[in-house]
Amino acid sequence: MNHIKLDISKVYGFVPEAEINKSESAANVALKKLYNKSGEGNDFLGWLDLPSKFPESLISDIEKTAAKLRSEIDLLVVVGIGGSYLGAKAIIDALSNNFAWMKTETAAPQIVFAGQNIGEDYISELLEVLDKKNYGIAVISKSGTTTEPALAFRILKNHLEKKVGKENAKKKIIAITDHSKGALRKMADIEGYKTFIIPDDTGGRFSVLTPVGLLPIAVAGFNIREFIKGAAEMEKSTSPEIPFSDNPASLYAATRNALYNKGKKIEILANFNSKLIYFSEWWKQLYGESEGKDGKGIYPASVNFTADLHSMGQYIQDGERHIFETVISVEKPASKFIIPKDNDDFDQLNYIAGKRVDEVNKMAELGTMLAHVDGGVPNIRISIDTISEFNLGQLVYFFEIACGISGYLLKVNPFNQPGVEAYKTNMFALLEKPGFEEETKKIKSRI
Amino acid sequence: MNHIKLDISKVYGFVPEAEINKSESAANVALKKLYNKSGEGNDFLGWLDLPSKFPESLISDIEKTAAKLRSEIDLLVVVGIGGSYLGAKAIIDALSNNFAWMKTETAAPQIVFAGQNIGEDYISELLEVLDKKNYGIAVISKSGTTTEPALAFRILKNHLEKKVGKENAKKKIIAITDHSKGALRKMADIEGYKTFIIPDDTGGRFSVLTPVGLLPIAVAGFNIREFIKGAAEMEKSTSPEIPFSDNPASLYAATRNALYNKGKKIEILANFNSKLIYFSEWWKQLYGESEGKDGKGIYPASVNFTADLHSMGQYIQDGERHIFETVISVEKPASKFIIPKDNDDFDQLNYIAGKRVDEVNKMAELGTMLAHVDGGVPNIRISIDTISEFNLGQLVYFFEIACGISGYLLKVNPFNQPGVEAYKTNMFALLEKPGFEEETKKIKSRI
Repeated sequence: MNHIKLDISKVYGFVPEAEINKSESAANVALKKLYNKSGEGNDFLGWLDLPSKFPESLISDIEKTAAKLRSEIDLLVVVGIGGSYLGAKAIIDALSNNFAWMKTETAAPQIVFAGQNIGEDYISELLEVLDKKNYGIAVISKSGTTTEPALAFRILKNHLEKKVGKENAKKKIIAITDHSKGALRKMADIEGYKTFIIPDDTGGRFSVLTPVGLLPIAVAGFNIREFIKGAAEMEKSTSPEIPFSDNPASLYAATRNALYNKGKKIEILANFNSKLIYFSEWWKQLYGESEGKDGKGIYPASVNFTADLHSMGQYIQDGERHIFETVISVEKPASKFIIPKDNDDFDQLNYIAGKRVDEVNKMAELGTMLAHVDGGVPNIRISIDTISEFNLGQLVYFFEIACGISGYLLKVNPFNQPGVEAYKTNMFALLEKPGFEEETKKIKSRI
Repeated sequence: MNHIKLDISKVYGFVPEAEINKSESAANVALKKLYNKSGEGNDFLGWLDLPSKFPESLISDIEKTAAKLRSEIDLLVVVGIGGSYLGAKAIIDALSNNFAWMKTETAAPQIVFAGQNIGEDYISELLEVLDKKNYGIAVISKSGTTTEPALAFRILKNHLEKKVGKENAKKKIIAITDHSKGALRKMADIEGYKTFIIPDDTGGRFSVLTPVGLLPIAVAGFNIREFIKGAAEMEKSTSPEIPFSDNPASLYAATRNALYNKGKKIEILANFNSKLIYFSEWWKQLYGESEGKDGKGIYPASVNFTADLHSMGQYIQDGERHIFETVISVEKPASKFIIPKDNDDFDQLNYIAGKRVDEVNKMAELGTMLAHVDGGVPNIRISIDTISEFNLGQLVYFFEIACGISGYLLKVNPFNQPGVEAYKTNMFALLEKPGFEEETKKIKSRI
């Protein structure tokens, strides 16, 4: 069953429904291309039917490993960058208490991330914390040689081995990597780390439903079965058998592409729930990396409301009209809090006393949508009932398959990322990495 | 002395230097308009000479109040939204340990924020934490009736009074508000809270160098004298006496406006230091709210590198060419960490063993700049020596005055924010606020 509601009616004032529907056949073709594996990037479609085919043995292996870690450590450092960072971070943040970092009494290990930057302060300050913690490491890298995570892992492994000894350290390190190739696979086999496999046919930004995302999410104490189940249900709801008008992924893809063709070059993903801040960061990688190529693509941006109504709100309301907004709405909060009456009523809020805080938030949301549409900003609304593992699984798969369709509508290969190499090559040349002698010579002559 | 370096040479391939210099007289006029207070929004120019004229008595009052709070509480809840949230958050994050939230042994009170959203989960989960903390509240609002902070303050005041008694609560609440008008001023006078004044002539997004930003920053343990001093030095370096070619604020404003006129509609503020993530959020409010009006304005976006090189990096390298990049570079980290040698060298990183981590980060930065410029993205580089109170004061004032100049070059009033009212009016109408009966009738007929 599909728990996501998609509302594109607030786009029709900018792009008529009939015009969006003109994309029906193109969207159907795109979706079939994904299923037939006949489009560009077809060697990276492992994510497509992963949820429905997820092996029970793998789920239970992840669960058991996570349970063991949970009983043994009080902090897990997840080492990864890009999709090996943002997926887990997005889901863990969404499901966690806003102030989880202050609740030191909880049973679940704290999760921190490393290898997603090259900060000398970041790694130094992390090690200072780790000196006093009983910690483990989940290192995530297909090759094991991507600079950021490889460097962080080298430093952390060194620290852990010094702290608990080489033999004990081995038991506290999990490697998520290629099944047979690469530096991390080699190291894991020699050292005897517990490993999980990153499937060959699944790119980083599509990997949150593989062990890459699932292990950290499970260690944080969340239900990965429900997460996968939500995704599997969405797989059914977005398959080629579903007609265009009932397929939320096709409709979302067709709508945003129609808006792009009308000059709406920036999609702003908005939330009204602070737990979704990193979900937007995950989404930005998914769409930015999939579509931003060949001089094309919608620029993915994000805002967190109502905070950013007092920041980016002015621009969205009145600035250049090259934007549209996609709102993720969460119907019900997990907590319940009634606004108290105040006898003095200096703040003039007694008119909302007795209401739930979320009722005010919902009126802010509705009021914002109407105001922005009036101001010339098309609005797409995606709503879920609650923030739960199941619903996040739905959202994740929804955005993944819509991204595949959208990329094909845009006529790009949504599954490669050739542009990511450019800075790496320059960096290697500047650092005089062996094998980059020619590039070193060239770049040194430029600076 | 000016500690900021601005490099616009990597823009010349897209907009020739001569073309930027054509804005010299317009930029000079804009700057003089600010100083003569003859432009639009001239009743909101209090920030312009505030650093150089900052009253010693006020600094010492803030310092004493902060010192007293620091000795009495272990957590300060700062209640505010927009400029009453982002300024303090940006500076405190920039100066804090990356893992400050885990270092419970430190003497300084933890700083948390509220009233920047209407999250029922957020406030409920915060209260749960506060049950166990000895906390104080700094409530920041000119009117005292802005929904988000007023609602949070009503709930928190209620909680604190129940926890420690009405009389004790009064001593733990600081109000930063109007000198004479508004609900919060009235409440503070009746209850006898310690207060600080938000100047009449300083808008929220320009208020970090007033008690709005300074009190929370001081409570967090940072040196506000140095922060103000840095800003005061930048005030000298950007005054109308400084020629255009030596004035970094005029040059930055002229450059970004020239880029905008060439179709570069998105400015991406990039950092290579995780401590600056919220500095970008502060900057987004400053520029988005100042320039996003009358159907105009550069869309301010941000990325955090190298993390986002594995996310938005692909788009920046190869996507639609409507973007330019402004990098804030920090020359020296606070920590020192040498990359260890590894005898096995599975990860093939021994070629950088013995280097500092930051050397790799700097080569990533330089490599990225070259790659993005090659890919068609103009690059502006702003560098500071270290992250310090002084240098952040410099950066803040630099961006503020450049924003004023830039707004006048764009021919908008950079000091108003009329668009922020639209969602509020709708929200009040939907919540049936007394006085909004007509709007309520209208909006109900629409939904």
